[in-house]
Formats: sequence, C-alpha cells, structure tokens
Amino acid sequence: MIVVHHLENSRSQRVLWLLEELGLPYEVRRYARDPKTMLAPPELKNVHPLGKSPVIEDGGRVVAETGAIVEYLVEKAEGRLGPPPNREAVLRYRHFLHYAEGSMMPPLLALLVVGRLGMLGKPARAPVQAMLDGHLDWLEGEIATRDWFAGDEFTAADIMMSFPLEASRSRGGLDESRPHLIDWLERIHARPAYGEALAKGGAYAYA
Amino acid sequence: MIVVHHLENSRSQRVLWLLEELGLPYEVRRYARDPKTMLAPPELKNVHPLGKSPVIEDGGRVVAETGAIVEYLVEKAEGRLGPPPNREAVLRYRHFLHYAEGSMMPPLLALLVVGRLGMLGKPARAPVQAMLDGHLDWLEGEIATRDWFAGDEFTAADIMMSFPLEASRSRGGLDESRPHLIDWLERIHARPAYGEALAKGGAYAYA
Repeated sequence: MIVVHHLENSRSQRVLWLLEELGLPYEVRRYARDPKTMLAPPELKNVHPLGKSPVIEDGGRVVAETGAIVEYLVEKAEGRLGPPPNREAVLRYRHFLHYAEGSMMPPLLALLVVGRLGMLGKPARAPVQAMLDGHLDWLEGEIATRDWFAGDEFTAADIMMSFPLEASRSRGGLDESRPHLIDWLERIHARPAYGEALAKGGAYAYA
Repeated sequence: MIVVHHLENSRSQRVLWLLEELGLPYEVRRYARDPKTMLAPPELKNVHPLGKSPVIEDGGRVVAETGAIVEYLVEKAEGRLGPPPNREAVLRYRHFLHYAEGSMMPPLLALLVVGRLGMLGKPARAPVQAMLDGHLDWLEGEIATRDWFAGDEFTAADIMMSFPLEASRSRGGLDESRPHLIDWLERIHARPAYGEALAKGGAYAYA
C-alpha cells in the first residue's frame, strides 16, 4: 500500500489527485504547517531527511520530489496518464513535467519571500511579478490552442501544472484576463478524482 | 545539427557539457546578459516566447527546460549517461533530474532576489539561507556514500546537479565545511568534456 505524506495546503495535493485518477490504493498521513513559519513540521524529517512534502512510501521505498513521484506512479499504473502516443505530445508532456517546478514555482516562491518582507520588499515585487507574468502569458497562449497541456488528452502533465496555476490565481495575479487558463482551472476542478483527492487531503486553500 | 542557444554565466552551460560528454555535434549561439538587469536579452524571445536559456533546436524542433533537454539528448544518444541499469540508481537518477531545478534552484533564486534588495532584504536572508543549508547538508551526506549522484557511475544527473552546486559555492555558502561536495565539484571540473564545454561557451563565473 502506498503511503502519501501529505502537507496541508501544498504541492502534495497533486499526488493525491494523481492517485485518485489512476485508481491506485493509498493511505494519507496528514501534516499541518507550523502556524508561525508556515513551513512543514519537523516530523516530516523522520520520513525523508529533507523534511519536505510530498514524499511517498511504497513497499519500504521512499520517493521524493513531485516530478519524480509522478513518473514513479505513472510507471506503476503501466503508463496511464503518461506521455501520449505522439512525438510532439511526448515532448510537451516531458517539458511540462519539468517546467511546473523548474520554471514556474521559483518566481512564486520569490514572490512569497518578498511578500513577507512587507514594504521592505516592494522594490523587488515588480521584477518578480514580471517574471511570473511572462510565464502566464505564454501558458495562456499554449492552452488556447489545445484542451490540455500535452495535447488533446488529459495527462499527468496537467496534474503537475495544477499547483503553480492555482498558486498563481491565489497570489500571483492570474485572473479572468487570461480566460483560457481560468477555464482550464475550472475543468480540472470539475473532475471527480480532483474532488475525491480534496476530501482525502483536508484543508486546501487553492481550489 | 543541434543548435544550443546559450546564455553566458547560466544554467545552460550544462547543456554544452552534456553534448561534449555525449560527443554529439552541435553549434553554439551565445547571448550576453543585459548589463543592467543581468537578465537574458530580448533576442532569445525569437527562439522561444519565454525568452529563456537554455533552448535547443534540432531539425526544426525547439526544446526548452533544462531537465527536458537533458532527457531529449540522452535519448538521442541512445541512453548514454542516462539511468543506470539498477532500480535504486534509476530512482535516484530520476529524483536528481527533477530535484536540481525543482528543489534546489528556488532558494538560490530567492537568495538572489533578496540579495538585490540590500539592507531591505536582510530579514529574509536567514530563513532562505536555512532552506538552502538543509539541501546542502542532505547532499553532502548523499555524496559521502557514493561517487556520483545516481550511483557508482557518472550520469546526466551529475550534470543537472552541477549548476545549483556551483551557484551554491559562488553565492550560497557552500565551502570546505562540506568536503564531499567540494571534492565532487573538483572531480566534475577535471573532466575533459567539462573543459571543452567551457571553451565553447565563453564567460562562466562558476567553474
């Protein structure tokens, strides 16, 4: 049985959603954020020394890092929701699997850090927001041309992209001025597996 | 012929190094940073709308995002420097391919943004540095137990990890107090292909 070490209101919500979409059995261990720092609690260090979430355990094996967990689970489900059978779609799938955390989350983290500085952080806000806006503009164009990020079919690349886009709507300026991204968010939130994962994960401020 | 759109002093140095290790023929187009903002110049937007580097072109196809480029090139080289033939090493390989940009670069970007704020950014410096220190401590332990990040063999996972660790040494506090990481940096810098890639790429402040 797969165990998901799940931090509330975090990127690990995607792992629960993927498991629901794949219909793989799993168990959730929930962790609350430290109310002062909003960071993961120290107990997570007992699972993996980095003390981050998501981490999964499967038959004594510990797998960390969202993109690697997604690849692990897709493989376990014999490729379901993995790269579609078309070369261009495979390349897009792979791109978004890395891009979600590798390119899109860094400006969102920087925005969070700068935001916590309050007025002191003001001079840094515009350049970081401009970085994020560049991503949102490009993504709006991408999702205007096809239904899902890799192609015509829903894949795990959409699951990877959910958290950065949900976080962008919550605190990065993504609104109705980018209607295709908002429509995509509404379509993912309407999926039954998404709702099931929400019920299993508990508090999630981004849906 | 593969064309690498290479930004000086950047994460794209890894793509040149990988190409040298694989012995694949390629051509470099160099771009200088904007001397004021230190960002990529606008010409890069003609290659890919995000205007980032690295981007490669191969027979009319454009591939962006370092992790995705690495997977593309390893595949093109029939799996050389790709996942080693051992399940645990495959999982480590995959982990580090995502981790380098997905977990390690975000605090390094945040440190850069906070650093540019000067004195204003001071309250944010310690918590961001603590995030990075957590990574460096864990990585020091990992590389103390085996020669390379995925296992006994040098792989593309080591190439992915080079930039975050070089950047950590340059501006993130990585020094001789973590001797295994420093030794690993010295070993990668001694590789002939690393030197060839430096000669092709021009200015690189991190080697």
